[in-house]
Amino acid sequence: MNQFINEKEHLVPNALDGLLNTSGGTLARLDGYPHIKVVLRADWDKSKVALISGGGSGHEPAHAGFVGRGMLTAAVCGEVFASPSADAVLAAILAVTGESGCLLIVKNYTGDRLNFGLAAERARAFGLKVEMVVVNDDIALPDLPQPRGVAGTLFLHKIAGAAAEENVSLGEITEIAHEVIGEISSIGMSLDTCTVPGSQKEDRIAPGKAELGLGIHGEAGVEQVVFDSAQLAMSQVLEKLGDRLGSEKHVALLNNLGSTTPLEMSVLANELVTSEYAGNITHIIGPAPLMTSLDMHGFSVSVMPLKDKWKAALEASVELSAWPAMTALQPANVKPLPDGLSPIKPIASENARTRAVIEACCDLLEAAEPDLNQLDLKSGDGDTGSTLATAARALKGSLDRMPLADLTQLFRAIGNELSQTMGGSSGVILAIFFGAAGDAFANGKPTAASLAAGLKRISEVGGAQKGDRTMIDALEPALEALPNGLKNAAVAAREGADATAKIGRAKAGRATYVPESNLIGNNDPGAEAVALLFEGLAQALEGK
Amino acid sequence: MNQFINEKEHLVPNALDGLLNTSGGTLARLDGYPHIKVVLRADWDKSKVALISGGGSGHEPAHAGFVGRGMLTAAVCGEVFASPSADAVLAAILAVTGESGCLLIVKNYTGDRLNFGLAAERARAFGLKVEMVVVNDDIALPDLPQPRGVAGTLFLHKIAGAAAEENVSLGEITEIAHEVIGEISSIGMSLDTCTVPGSQKEDRIAPGKAELGLGIHGEAGVEQVVFDSAQLAMSQVLEKLGDRLGSEKHVALLNNLGSTTPLEMSVLANELVTSEYAGNITHIIGPAPLMTSLDMHGFSVSVMPLKDKWKAALEASVELSAWPAMTALQPANVKPLPDGLSPIKPIASENARTRAVIEACCDLLEAAEPDLNQLDLKSGDGDTGSTLATAARALKGSLDRMPLADLTQLFRAIGNELSQTMGGSSGVILAIFFGAAGDAFANGKPTAASLAAGLKRISEVGGAQKGDRTMIDALEPALEALPNGLKNAAVAAREGADATAKIGRAKAGRATYVPESNLIGNNDPGAEAVALLFEGLAQALEGK
Repeated sequence: MNQFINEKEHLVPNALDGLLNTSGGTLARLDGYPHIKVVLRADWDKSKVALISGGGSGHEPAHAGFVGRGMLTAAVCGEVFASPSADAVLAAILAVTGESGCLLIVKNYTGDRLNFGLAAERARAFGLKVEMVVVNDDIALPDLPQPRGVAGTLFLHKIAGAAAEENVSLGEITEIAHEVIGEISSIGMSLDTCTVPGSQKEDRIAPGKAELGLGIHGEAGVEQVVFDSAQLAMSQVLEKLGDRLGSEKHVALLNNLGSTTPLEMSVLANELVTSEYAGNITHIIGPAPLMTSLDMHGFSVSVMPLKDKWKAALEASVELSAWPAMTALQPANVKPLPDGLSPIKPIASENARTRAVIEACCDLLEAAEPDLNQLDLKSGDGDTGSTLATAARALKGSLDRMPLADLTQLFRAIGNELSQTMGGSSGVILAIFFGAAGDAFANGKPTAASLAAGLKRISEVGGAQKGDRTMIDALEPALEALPNGLKNAAVAAREGADATAKIGRAKAGRATYVPESNLIGNNDPGAEAVALLFEGLAQALEGK
Repeated sequence: MNQFINEKEHLVPNALDGLLNTSGGTLARLDGYPHIKVVLRADWDKSKVALISGGGSGHEPAHAGFVGRGMLTAAVCGEVFASPSADAVLAAILAVTGESGCLLIVKNYTGDRLNFGLAAERARAFGLKVEMVVVNDDIALPDLPQPRGVAGTLFLHKIAGAAAEENVSLGEITEIAHEVIGEISSIGMSLDTCTVPGSQKEDRIAPGKAELGLGIHGEAGVEQVVFDSAQLAMSQVLEKLGDRLGSEKHVALLNNLGSTTPLEMSVLANELVTSEYAGNITHIIGPAPLMTSLDMHGFSVSVMPLKDKWKAALEASVELSAWPAMTALQPANVKPLPDGLSPIKPIASENARTRAVIEACCDLLEAAEPDLNQLDLKSGDGDTGSTLATAARALKGSLDRMPLADLTQLFRAIGNELSQTMGGSSGVILAIFFGAAGDAFANGKPTAASLAAGLKRISEVGGAQKGDRTMIDALEPALEALPNGLKNAAVAAREGADATAKIGRAKAGRATYVPESNLIGNNDPGAEAVALLFEGLAQALEGK
C-alpha cells in the first residue's frame, strides 16, 4: 500500500463522498453504491438539456469535478480505468433527463461506447430524448480508425455546458458537439507510467526517455523519444499537433496527467507560449490537472480552433474550482526595477591599522576554512568554513575602495560588501550586524558598544538568543569583555564557543532539526569561527 | 533529468514566465532576473496596504499563484527551497508600497526572516511604512521555540488580503495578522520525500510507513508511523492537531503536498469529514495543492477557529484559480435511484429442444475455456475463455426461470442475464445483440434474420465491422449461412475465424493497441469462440 486509500473496493465511493462532502452542497449522488456511482447537480430541475459524461475513474477531476452549472449535469463513474455499467448510465439518464432530453458525452473506448449506448437505447424505450456523441481527439496514432477520447473532451464539456445553460435545444447541442469533436486534437507525453491502486507501476520508460502519445490508462505510447528538456518535450508535442496550428487562432488546453509539479507545469506553459511550433495558439486553458491518469508524470496538450461562435462559451465563467478559466496568452508584463536598490557607494579612504586588523581577520578565516567545514558537517552541510573564507577573500580584495578612515561608513560598507559576496543567511546576518553597528557608531557609541548594538539587532531579527547554539554564544561574551582588551574577549569567546558543544538542541538556524547525538561534543561552527577570530586577533595584535 | 525543466538555473524564471504568460494579463514581474524574481499585480495602484509574501520556490502555487485582488500584492520568489535575497524583497517593497504601507508575511525560516527583515529595515530608511509578521504554524515539534511556517500561511494571505482590499489600515491588518498567526496549526504526512531538481530523491520512508510532521523542504518528520490506510493517516494527523478541535467551530485547509492524486485527496477529504477526531471542523478549503513541496506524495491539514470576524474574509470570492474557495462541510446529498432500472422479469416456460440447444452451447463454451484463454493471451489479458465460461455456467443455472417457450422474451431475457453475469464489454455486446434479436423476432423475422439484426445493432453501437478482427468476422458469415443449415454456418464461421489470424491490425476492442507480431498467426479469441460454438452445435445437433 503506497497510496492514501482504504480498501480498494471502496476507493471510488470514498473519493466521490469526499468530493460531495466538500462541494458546499452543490453536488448530490444517486443511492446506488457500490455499482451505481452517479454524481449530479444538487440544484438540477430538468428544465434544460442535461449533459452526462463519465467513464472509468482515475482521471479526476474528470468527470465528476466538472458537474455544475455551465458544465455537466451528471457524471457516471466506473471503477478505476473501467467503464461504468449500462445500469449506472441508465440511472443517471433517468435521474436527470426532463422534456428537453439529454446528451451523453462519451470518450471513445469500447466499454464506454457500449455501456452508454445500451443505456441510451433502454432510456429511449422509456420515451426519453437521448443523444450520444463520441469524442476521439487523441492523435497519437494518426491512422487509427478508433482514436481514443482524452483531455480534449473538456472543450466539449465547456462549450456544450454553456449552450445547455442558455437553453439551446438538444438537436442543436448535438450538432455543436459533432462539430467541436471534429476540431479537437490532443496528444500526451510522460516520463513515467501510472500506478493503478493495488498494482506496481510498470517500469517501462528508461531515464533520458519520454513516451509520446501514450494513453490516459498507461497504454504504451507510439514511440519513446529522447528527453532532455521541457523545451524539447513541448516542441515534440506541438509538432505532432501539426500544421493546423498555423492556419487560424487556436486555444490550447494544457493538462497535467497526474504528478507533474506546478513548477514543471508552469515551465511547460512557458515553453508552449514561446515555442516556434505554437503557431497561432492565442488562448490557454490551464495548466491544470483536468483529465489525469492517476499519478502519471506527464502532460497533454489539446487544441481546437478558437472560432468566434465558441469563444464566449469557452470564456463563460463557471463556479467550478476544477475549471481554470480560459485566458488570452500574452508576453510577460515586465516592469522596471524601482530606484533605491543600489546602496550609495562610500568614498575610499586609508587607515593602516584598520586595514591591518581587517586583513588579519580575513587571513584567520581563510586559514580556518577546512576545520570549520569539518565541524559544520556534524550539524549542517559542511560549508561554514568555505562561506566565511570566500567572504574574507572578497573583503580583502575590496579594501582599496573601502572608507577605512571613517568607521561609521566602514561598518556600513562592510555590511553591504558581505551581503553581496557571502550570500545566504550568514551574509544577511552580518549585513544587519555591521549596518546597526555603523548606526550606533554614528550616534557616538564606542566601538565595542557599537558592535554590541549590531548583535542586539541580529538577535531581534533572526530570533536567536545566547544558548541557542549559534555564533551569538561566542560573540556576546566576547563583546562584553572587549572593553577589557582583546585577550579577555578571546578567552570569553573561547569559553562561549566551547559551551556550545554541550547544547544538544539548536533553537535557531539549520541545526534546529539535527538530532542531539550529532551536536553534543561538537562546537557550533559559527561560534567556533568567532572564537578563532578573537584568539587569532589577540595573538596577532597584542601578542599571546 | 527526470523532470519537465530546462537548465536548472533557469527553472524559477521559466516557471514564473509561464505563470505570467497564462495569467491573462493580471500579473506582472520586475525586470530583475535572475536575482530578483518578484511577481506583482499588474493593476496595482498603491492606493491600499500592500501585502508581500514569498520565500523559496518549490511550493507552488504558493506564493506567486496567490497574487491578485483580495490576496497578495506581490510575491518574492527565491530559488528552489532558498530564501530570496534582501535586495529582491526590497525591490518588491519599493515597487508596491504606497502611503498606506505594506505588510511582509514571512514563513518562519531563518533565511526568510533575515532577508525580509533586512529589506524591511532598508525600506524604512526610505521612509516607507513596513511591518513584518512571521508565521509559525507547524506543530510537528510542539516544544520547538521556532516552529516552521507552512500551509497555514494561506489562511493569513486570505484574511489579510480581504482586509487590505477593504482598505483596512496597516496597523489594523498587522494586528489581525498577529491574532491569526496565534490561532493557526498545521501538520503534514507523507509517503515519500520530494525530488529537488538535479538531485535524487532520498529513499527514507520504507513501504508500509509514513512520515508524520515532516517539513515542506523534505526535512525528516518527527516520527515514522505505520501506514495502512487513508483512514489511519488522517486520524493520526487530526490527533496531532489535538483537543482544540473540540472547543469551537474550525475551518480546515487540506493541502496536497505535491504528487498525491486528486483521487487520493478526495479520499482524504472524506476521511477528514467522517473522522471521529475531526471535532468541530465545519468548513474546508481544498483539497487542493496550495503549499506544495515539489513532488512530495503527502498532504497536510491546517486548522484555525472559524471566528465570525474572519468568516467573511475567508469566504470572500477571489478570481484566483489556485484558491479553491471555502465551503461548508455537509454530509453527502444522496438521492433515491430512479424507477425503471430493473428489467421486467419474464414468466418461466419450458421447451425441451431450446433447453438442449442452450445447454449444448454452454457446455461447449465451458469446455473451450482454457484454449480461449490461451489464445487471448496473445492479444488481450487472457480471460476471454473464463469470461465466456462464467457466463455459460450462470446461464445454465438460470434456465429454470427462463421463458424457454417464447423466443422473443427468451432473447431479451438472455440478454439481461448475460449483461448482469458477464460484466465488461462482452456482456453489454451480447445484451445489445440479444435485445435487438428479440425485437426483430417480435416483428416476425425468422430466427437467423433476427440474430442478424442483433449483429447489425452491435456493429453500430460498438463501431466494429467485419475485417476488424472481432467475433463479427465469424458471426456474420455464420448467420448468413445459417438459413442453409448449421453445418454450413459452422464452415462459414470457421473460415471467418481462421481469417482473423491474417489480420495484423485490430480496428476495434482491446487488441487495437497490440503490435502486429502478436496478432498474425493467432485467431481472434472472440471469433474463435463463435467458430467453436457453431462447429460443436452442428456436431451435437445434426451429427458430423
